[in-house]
Amino acid sequence: MRILLFRGDGVIEPWVREFAALMPQVETVAWKEGAALPPCDYAVVWSPTPGLLDQLAHVRAIFLMGAGVDALLKLGNALPPVPIVRLGDAGMGVQMAEYVSHAVLRYYRHFDDYEQQARHGVWDPLPLTPKEEFAVGIMGLGRLGLPVVEAMRLFGFPVRGWSRTPKDIPGVECFHGEEGLEPFLRATRVLVCMLPLTPETANLLDRHRLGKLQPGAFLINVSRGAILAEPDLMTLIRSGHIAGATLDVFRHEPLPAPHPFWNEPRISITPHISALTVRHDAVLQIADKIAKLESGQPVDDIVDRDLGY
Amino acid sequence: MRILLFRGDGVIEPWVREFAALMPQVETVAWKEGAALPPCDYAVVWSPTPGLLDQLAHVRAIFLMGAGVDALLKLGNALPPVPIVRLGDAGMGVQMAEYVSHAVLRYYRHFDDYEQQARHGVWDPLPLTPKEEFAVGIMGLGRLGLPVVEAMRLFGFPVRGWSRTPKDIPGVECFHGEEGLEPFLRATRVLVCMLPLTPETANLLDRHRLGKLQPGAFLINVSRGAILAEPDLMTLIRSGHIAGATLDVFRHEPLPAPHPFWNEPRISITPHISALTVRHDAVLQIADKIAKLESGQPVDDIVDRDLGY
Repeated sequence: MRILLFRGDGVIEPWVREFAALMPQVETVAWKEGAALPPCDYAVVWSPTPGLLDQLAHVRAIFLMGAGVDALLKLGNALPPVPIVRLGDAGMGVQMAEYVSHAVLRYYRHFDDYEQQARHGVWDPLPLTPKEEFAVGIMGLGRLGLPVVEAMRLFGFPVRGWSRTPKDIPGVECFHGEEGLEPFLRATRVLVCMLPLTPETANLLDRHRLGKLQPGAFLINVSRGAILAEPDLMTLIRSGHIAGATLDVFRHEPLPAPHPFWNEPRISITPHISALTVRHDAVLQIADKIAKLESGQPVDDIVDRDLGY
Repeated sequence: MRILLFRGDGVIEPWVREFAALMPQVETVAWKEGAALPPCDYAVVWSPTPGLLDQLAHVRAIFLMGAGVDALLKLGNALPPVPIVRLGDAGMGVQMAEYVSHAVLRYYRHFDDYEQQARHGVWDPLPLTPKEEFAVGIMGLGRLGLPVVEAMRLFGFPVRGWSRTPKDIPGVECFHGEEGLEPFLRATRVLVCMLPLTPETANLLDRHRLGKLQPGAFLINVSRGAILAEPDLMTLIRSGHIAGATLDVFRHEPLPAPHPFWNEPRISITPHISALTVRHDAVLQIADKIAKLESGQPVDDIVDRDLGY
């Protein structure tokens, strides 16, 4: 069996080694722009470029090295009609829970304020906010959302969720669809965006919708930058309606040097690290899914191209 | 029934109101230095002064408004031979879990480094540390320690514990006593101090013992400042053996203006807020314990004066 590997960032060697260790019977070939390869059975890719399309014409399935599929689906109708399979959890769920917990606790317990105080030698205990006033609203209740729900519930935050279709999750007040969006936003103090980027979610978080959040709300974005109207967030931060934002993803990455987010102290920036792919877990999962495909068994995480995730 | 109330910080009115709301049948009297009060049935105190001793002579029990009893026990043999009852959890356990989770995740996920990067407009994803290299060691496995254990286990950190006497806690590698201290410290990456302050624990965390932690270790102190030899921590931070510390408690509070901790960027300072007493929960708990004492039932959280907690 031959597997084509490609990553837009060129970091391919560690993947070759991981496949060699976990699927020694497989030949991996790394594709580069302009190269022609022998026919491959499967492709495992991240941030693909159009030049890759010819190489994908004969594979039996395309695997992604992450959970987001928007970059691949941009290639559109030119993609071969084979299953596209994204990563399931593969170590990313717990990372999301870590990232979101840190950010929520930072705001809830005033650790950002205490850091400012300490910088000026100030010792001033601040009152505890009742948890009822600090509802966490999670948009996107898929595989990576559930570990976040679990962590928020452990700490006793009221948890609300919004998704495209109805969900029923114990301990979560669930909303869905366009008509559920306003009531969801109105009672949310911390908005956590975990939605996939699709034509429906692009620019979903704009001035109009973010403005429905409670005054003094916080935003945490760990999915895709294009879901957020970035200038609208700046406006709402400057007006004080949004008290702070923790952003891991941006419309253009790396975040360009002149972007106003860099100089806004109420915005915390991390370089798209909320859930790094754990190569070992990812390759184990891909190996398992290939075995299932080869034996005609059903496989999880197959992308619905119409829905876009 | 008459209850004497006293707090060293003088903030007594909110407690009077809370008792009035939850124990309306009780008369509360607030004691001030030099005053003489009618005989009281119970005392509920925090940071008591020696002048209070005469007033305590005839109470049936002394309740504390927190979990730490060191300040009261300093009054020593002059204390009447009645039960001293500290607060159990009363909303403090989850706060401890929040505080410690935030600090551990901050170090584990490099959020402190990313904050530095962002201040300089730098975008540089850092590799994930395997969890096996990030064992969290908790000293003090009492009521407030267990919610911390639960949170650390949710995030998948290896959890180790040290206590005076043997404990057996599922999922925790337990050590105890003087002979257990060195093996406990040697494999701990993040040391969380939750011990009570007693003659045995004063200055326990000195250069010798902290020096046994793994190089690049972190310290989180949420119990009492006098357990830590503060100049020794500065030495180990400057040598790089300890990579960072998050301190909520200090030998002298508020932390004095000229203290070197204020100017050390690898030390995060909070003003003794890791677990604030939730008055409502505390008064409910005291009311329940008084009812038990009055009817001769056993009561939790009675202090062992010899052990000092």
